[in-house]
Amino acid sequence: MSAPTNLTINGARLWESLMELAKIGATEKGGVCRLTLTDLDKKARDLFAGWCKAAGATVSVDRMGNVFARREGRDPARPPVMTGSHIDTQPTGGKFDGAYGVMAGLEVLRTLHETGVETDAPIEVAVWTNEEGARFAPAMMGSGVFTGIFNEDEIKAKTDRDGVAFGDALEKIGYAGSLPCGGRKVGAFFECHIEQGPILEAAGKTIGVVTGGQAQRWYEVDLIGAESHAGTTPMERRRDALLGAARIIDMVNHIGLTHMPLARATCGVIESHPQSRNTVPGRVFLTVEFRHPDEAELSIMDKTFRAQAARIAGEIGLALDVKEIWHFPATPFHADCIAAVREAAKTRGYPHRDIISGAGHDALYLARVAPTAMIFVPCADGISHNEIESAKPEDLAAGCQVLLDAMLRRAYEVK
Amino acid sequence: MSAPTNLTINGARLWESLMELAKIGATEKGGVCRLTLTDLDKKARDLFAGWCKAAGATVSVDRMGNVFARREGRDPARPPVMTGSHIDTQPTGGKFDGAYGVMAGLEVLRTLHETGVETDAPIEVAVWTNEEGARFAPAMMGSGVFTGIFNEDEIKAKTDRDGVAFGDALEKIGYAGSLPCGGRKVGAFFECHIEQGPILEAAGKTIGVVTGGQAQRWYEVDLIGAESHAGTTPMERRRDALLGAARIIDMVNHIGLTHMPLARATCGVIESHPQSRNTVPGRVFLTVEFRHPDEAELSIMDKTFRAQAARIAGEIGLALDVKEIWHFPATPFHADCIAAVREAAKTRGYPHRDIISGAGHDALYLARVAPTAMIFVPCADGISHNEIESAKPEDLAAGCQVLLDAMLRRAYEVK
Repeated sequence: MSAPTNLTINGARLWESLMELAKIGATEKGGVCRLTLTDLDKKARDLFAGWCKAAGATVSVDRMGNVFARREGRDPARPPVMTGSHIDTQPTGGKFDGAYGVMAGLEVLRTLHETGVETDAPIEVAVWTNEEGARFAPAMMGSGVFTGIFNEDEIKAKTDRDGVAFGDALEKIGYAGSLPCGGRKVGAFFECHIEQGPILEAAGKTIGVVTGGQAQRWYEVDLIGAESHAGTTPMERRRDALLGAARIIDMVNHIGLTHMPLARATCGVIESHPQSRNTVPGRVFLTVEFRHPDEAELSIMDKTFRAQAARIAGEIGLALDVKEIWHFPATPFHADCIAAVREAAKTRGYPHRDIISGAGHDALYLARVAPTAMIFVPCADGISHNEIESAKPEDLAAGCQVLLDAMLRRAYEVK
Repeated sequence: MSAPTNLTINGARLWESLMELAKIGATEKGGVCRLTLTDLDKKARDLFAGWCKAAGATVSVDRMGNVFARREGRDPARPPVMTGSHIDTQPTGGKFDGAYGVMAGLEVLRTLHETGVETDAPIEVAVWTNEEGARFAPAMMGSGVFTGIFNEDEIKAKTDRDGVAFGDALEKIGYAGSLPCGGRKVGAFFECHIEQGPILEAAGKTIGVVTGGQAQRWYEVDLIGAESHAGTTPMERRRDALLGAARIIDMVNHIGLTHMPLARATCGVIESHPQSRNTVPGRVFLTVEFRHPDEAELSIMDKTFRAQAARIAGEIGLALDVKEIWHFPATPFHADCIAAVREAAKTRGYPHRDIISGAGHDALYLARVAPTAMIFVPCADGISHNEIESAKPEDLAAGCQVLLDAMLRRAYEVK
C-alpha cells in the first residue's frame, strides 16, 4: 500500500482541543500553570486519554508515566510511527509549548479514525513525562529514560523543592504504569512544536522543517584580579576582574556574530565581588554558552574563546579559570524524516524553510534511538515560557497537516 | 617671633603610641576593629585624652564628640593651627588609617611640651568622630558637622543596623560634649595619613605633598533590553543588556586610560537579570564613578561617557538611563599650607612628590573653612582598609617631622 494523500486534518477541532486543554491550570493572564505530576497534570492526562479512546486508540502507560495512545496498523509487528510532546508547563507557561505537539497527535488519530484509513505500521501518540524540568530537574525525564539516557531508578529518586520524590508523585496521580520504559523499536518519531524563537515569523514562513538540534558547550569562568580602592589606585596599576569579564562578554558576542547565522553565544550569569561602588572588583564569576548545529564549527568557537579569554586575562593581569561544565552533542535529524516533513510542506503549498532547534525537546532524545524530525510553526514575537505565548490557529493547523502527511508517508515506508 | 627649626620629633615614641593604641580592638590577623562610638572607641579616646593631658594640653569635647587637645599659644586670640584625623576603624581595618594622623598630632604636642617651645598661635590636635562611616553612614560625620556640611540634628538621628541612634551611642560612651560643633576660626589644618594607594611606594618617595582632593562624579546606569532564549534567538535579533553593560565597562576604563595619570574610572557594582545561564540578559544595573582633581577634565570625562553610553545602547537597541547621583567638587588645598609641607620635606631631605588624595579624609571637609594641606606617607602595596595594612616606622616618623615643621611655620604666620 502507499500513503493516502487526500486526508485533511480539522484545524478548528485542533484549536478547540488546545483551548479545552488550556483550561486545566489556566492562569489569570491567559497562560497555563500545570506542573508535572500534579493533580492538574493528572486531569490533563485523563482528558487526553479519554479523547484518544474515543478516537479508537488504545492507551497504555509505562513505568515513567509516559502515556502512549496507539492506533493499530495492518501489520502490528512493524515498529510504530510515533508523534508526541508533553503537557506539563512552566510555572508561568503558555497554551502551546508541548500541548500543541500532543493535540496535533490527537488530531492525527481523530482524522485517521473518522476516515477509517488503515496504515501499514501502527500510529502512536506519546505524552512524555516532565519535559519542562520545572518541578523536578533535569528536564526531559520521560523521553530521557525511554531512550536510555537516564537511569530509571535515579530519576525516580529525584525530589522537588518540597522533598517529594518523583516516583512517589507519579504513584500519587495514578500514572506509574507497568510497561517497561523504552526498550522497544520506534519506526519514526515526529514532534510538532511552536518555534519558541523569532525566525519563522520574521521570515514569513508557516512551517519550519527542523533539520536537527544544536550542539552546546557550557562554561563557567572565574576571573581573579585584586580588589583595590577606586580613588587611590591609578588606572595602570589595576587588576580589574570586571573589566576582564566585560571584555570576555564582548568577545563571546563577537564569536557568535562571526559564526552567524547558526551560532549562538551567550553570557547569562555574572557575579562580581565585592559589589562596592568605590572598589575595583577583584573577582568575577561568569557563565558562557555556545551553540551550533555543526560540531566542527562549535569546536572552532571553543578554541577561539579559550585563546581570547587567556589573552584578555593576561593583558589585565588576571588569573583565569575556564571550566567546560557541559557538552551536548549536535543532534542531526534523520534525512528520511526531514524529507517527509519538507515534502509535505511543499505539496501543501505552505511557505517553509529549514531551521535548527535552538531549545531542548523530547525529539532530541528520541533521535538517539529512532529516525526523527520536528515541525515548527511560528509563535508571536518568538516568545515562549511566558503566559503571553501565542500562535495562530491557521499555522497550528498547517503544522498538524504536515505532521499527518509525514506520519502517513513513514507509516507505509518503515518496516 | 619666627618658628624654631631645630625641633625633632621622637619616631620611636610615635611608633610605640601607635602600637599601644592598636591594642584597643586588635584582631587576630594583626588589624584593628574599633567601630565608632563603641566601648573600644571610648577606651581609645580616653587613652588619647590622658596622653594629651600628660603632655600639658587641655582637652575639650564638642557636641559631635569631636575631641580637641589644645596647647595654648602666646596669643590665645589667634586661631589655632590644627592637626588631626580619626581613631575609628573599618570592621577589618589596620593600625594606621586615621590613627597615624592622631598619634602624629600627639607626638607634635609631646615634642613641644618637652622642649618648652611656646608658639604664637595655639596648637590643637583633633579626633574627628566617625570618619569611616562603617557603623553610621555617611562617613566623616564629625568634620562634616564642624565645617557646616552636615546638620547636627540630622546626623545625630542616623541609626546603625541595630537601630541605635548616633546621638544615643555618643551619650552612652560619655563623649557628647557641651562645646558647639564648629563655628570657630581655624588658622590652618594639616592631616598626616598613609597614602592608601601605591604611588609613593612605587616612586620611592617618603613624603606625599598632598595638593588637594579629587572631584568625583558617581552614576547609576540602567540598561533595558529584552530577555530571550539563548538557544532560539539569533545573534542579530538580540537586545542583550549585559553586552551593553560590558561595552560600557570597557569604555569607562578607556576614558580613565585616556585621562591618565590623574583620572580614575571605575565600575564597582553590576546586577544582571534574570541571571539564567540560557537566557539573554534583559536588564542590567551598573555603577560608574569618575574622579579627577581638575573639574574641567572631569567634565570632559562626563560628556564622553554620556555620549558613548548612548551610542553603545543605541547600537544594541537598549533603553538607557544614566543618573548622576553624586558630584563631589574638587578640593584644592591652600597654597601656603602646601608650601609649608613641601618646604619641610625639602629642608629635611626627604624624597617627596606632589600627590592628589584619592580617598576621602576629614581634611577635605576642613579645607572648606580653613587653609589646609595633607601629608601622605607610603603604605605597603598601597593596601588599606585591610588588617594587613602596613607602614614603615621611619616613613611615619618622617611624615610626623614634616607635620611639626609645617605646623610650627604656620603657628607664627597665622593671625
